[in-house]
Amino acid sequence: MSVIALSGGVGGAKLALGLSAQLSSEELAIIANTGDDGFHSGLLVCPDIDTLIYTLSGQSHSEQGWGLQNESWSVFDQLEKMGGETWFRLGDKDLATHLFRAERLQQGQSLTHVTAALCKAHGIPPNIYPMCNEPLQTKLKIEGGRVLDFHEYFVKEQCKPKVKQIQFVGEPSLSNEIVALIERHDRLIMCPSNPFLSIDPILQVSGLQSKIVNEIPKRLVVSPIINGQAVKGPTAKLMQELALPVTNESVAKKYQTLATHIIIDQQDKQDRASLEAMGLKVLVTNTLMKTLDDKKQLAEDALNFLDRT
Amino acid sequence: MSVIALSGGVGGAKLALGLSAQLSSEELAIIANTGDDGFHSGLLVCPDIDTLIYTLSGQSHSEQGWGLQNESWSVFDQLEKMGGETWFRLGDKDLATHLFRAERLQQGQSLTHVTAALCKAHGIPPNIYPMCNEPLQTKLKIEGGRVLDFHEYFVKEQCKPKVKQIQFVGEPSLSNEIVALIERHDRLIMCPSNPFLSIDPILQVSGLQSKIVNEIPKRLVVSPIINGQAVKGPTAKLMQELALPVTNESVAKKYQTLATHIIIDQQDKQDRASLEAMGLKVLVTNTLMKTLDDKKQLAEDALNFLDRT
Repeated sequence: MSVIALSGGVGGAKLALGLSAQLSSEELAIIANTGDDGFHSGLLVCPDIDTLIYTLSGQSHSEQGWGLQNESWSVFDQLEKMGGETWFRLGDKDLATHLFRAERLQQGQSLTHVTAALCKAHGIPPNIYPMCNEPLQTKLKIEGGRVLDFHEYFVKEQCKPKVKQIQFVGEPSLSNEIVALIERHDRLIMCPSNPFLSIDPILQVSGLQSKIVNEIPKRLVVSPIINGQAVKGPTAKLMQELALPVTNESVAKKYQTLATHIIIDQQDKQDRASLEAMGLKVLVTNTLMKTLDDKKQLAEDALNFLDRT
Repeated sequence: MSVIALSGGVGGAKLALGLSAQLSSEELAIIANTGDDGFHSGLLVCPDIDTLIYTLSGQSHSEQGWGLQNESWSVFDQLEKMGGETWFRLGDKDLATHLFRAERLQQGQSLTHVTAALCKAHGIPPNIYPMCNEPLQTKLKIEGGRVLDFHEYFVKEQCKPKVKQIQFVGEPSLSNEIVALIERHDRLIMCPSNPFLSIDPILQVSGLQSKIVNEIPKRLVVSPIINGQAVKGPTAKLMQELALPVTNESVAKKYQTLATHIIIDQQDKQDRASLEAMGLKVLVTNTLMKTLDDKKQLAEDALNFLDRT
């Protein structure tokens, strides 16, 4: 069995870590959302790729949900004194990642290539792939009509504005590496990331969704909703603003053409029937990943579920 | 009296500091060499502009000759651990300058504009100007035929290769700001920087030299040579490799069409006659700038010399 995981940042990275404990690096490929990539202080920052790398290499700041443990802030403290733009603060160690990336991108290497090098530089197998090499920008039209860049919404405004519409700007195409991955793997797992801000951007890559449906027969979504709430982040708030019930059913509808399997939390076991009625295979288990064991267990449950159904 | 100073890094910055103590910021404009600018870790680094800013704001590392006092190295220590490219090490505080610049350049601001903002960010008047807004690259053809970028020669190879030829790549044009400066000031001082690697690149800017000659009647060069040696840096070694005697006469010949006045060190007073024979007005004084007082004194000597001759 070999698995492609689609992942955003924090929540997705937790399951990706669990999967990486259960599968060899040949059996697992992780496609990361790059729809929230953006330039800060002139450097391309890829938050989801970096959260995956830091999580899988055991360096992530687990309480904070982003960045590195034991980080220092010499550069941005100085930039702040200089009156520079510092609402998107980058730690010193984290900056080394962005400089490493910037140097190689400037030499003309693809983001896919550079990401593999970054994995190795952080001591993990190079099986994290950006969804594409071209830019795709996630933008949020908010109440009042303003359109925010992802990080203006997510970091600067702390997800407070009411979102009326999510827009994607860019026309990313399938990279050769992603084509080869899809042809080489026989399972898909959509990690419990934000369906609208983390997984949807991946599905904007031209031809990716149809290629997956054609090539990969078993396609599982792990619902990010537990008891009408998201574990972390703006998923539930966003669903309300988009006038969607905060339910597993809404998640299932969102992935209607893509998912064949769904995992929901045991707190939501009453949803099983309606999800099965939508044609999905359903597993009810613990989806809240607090400890490393939780992550491994959910990964194991997901792999067994895909194996036997 | 108002003065334009042409300056490279360390040696030039010393006299620029002296001049800034003698003149108001309206009376002094410093045009910095950008021919050794280059990208490191994806960020544009402007060594001569930055040395000038750090020197004039009292932050420069005086023993080292580049960079900042009390610097820390968190980012590059991490980049080194990651196996990144680290032969051109950038300190944490210094990086804040490069990020400040990168952010604004990416927004489409000109280097002239960003440099003014950087001066203010470091607490000094915005009277340091890049010689142009476009890139000009200084390259060195060395023995054996290889062509090195400036920093490969200067930092990576520590000026050890024998230089056969200096090449300039790029076609920089006069910026509106430099045109206005030349029209507004009535004295020119070429600081004791390397004539070949620091001042020559400035003179590559199309139309700059003839504009200066037409608009500014008194044009002084402060010789960087003392008793057949350069105070710091590869000037003397380079002159030997280019088959030029390491003398004030060679410096004078280099600036033959540009300079009307020259200052040489008291150790070289015997050179006065031959320099006067070349049509130059000559001042013999102390040109070695060890202390702040030395810098102020040389600046005062230069200003008086231009005033009275």
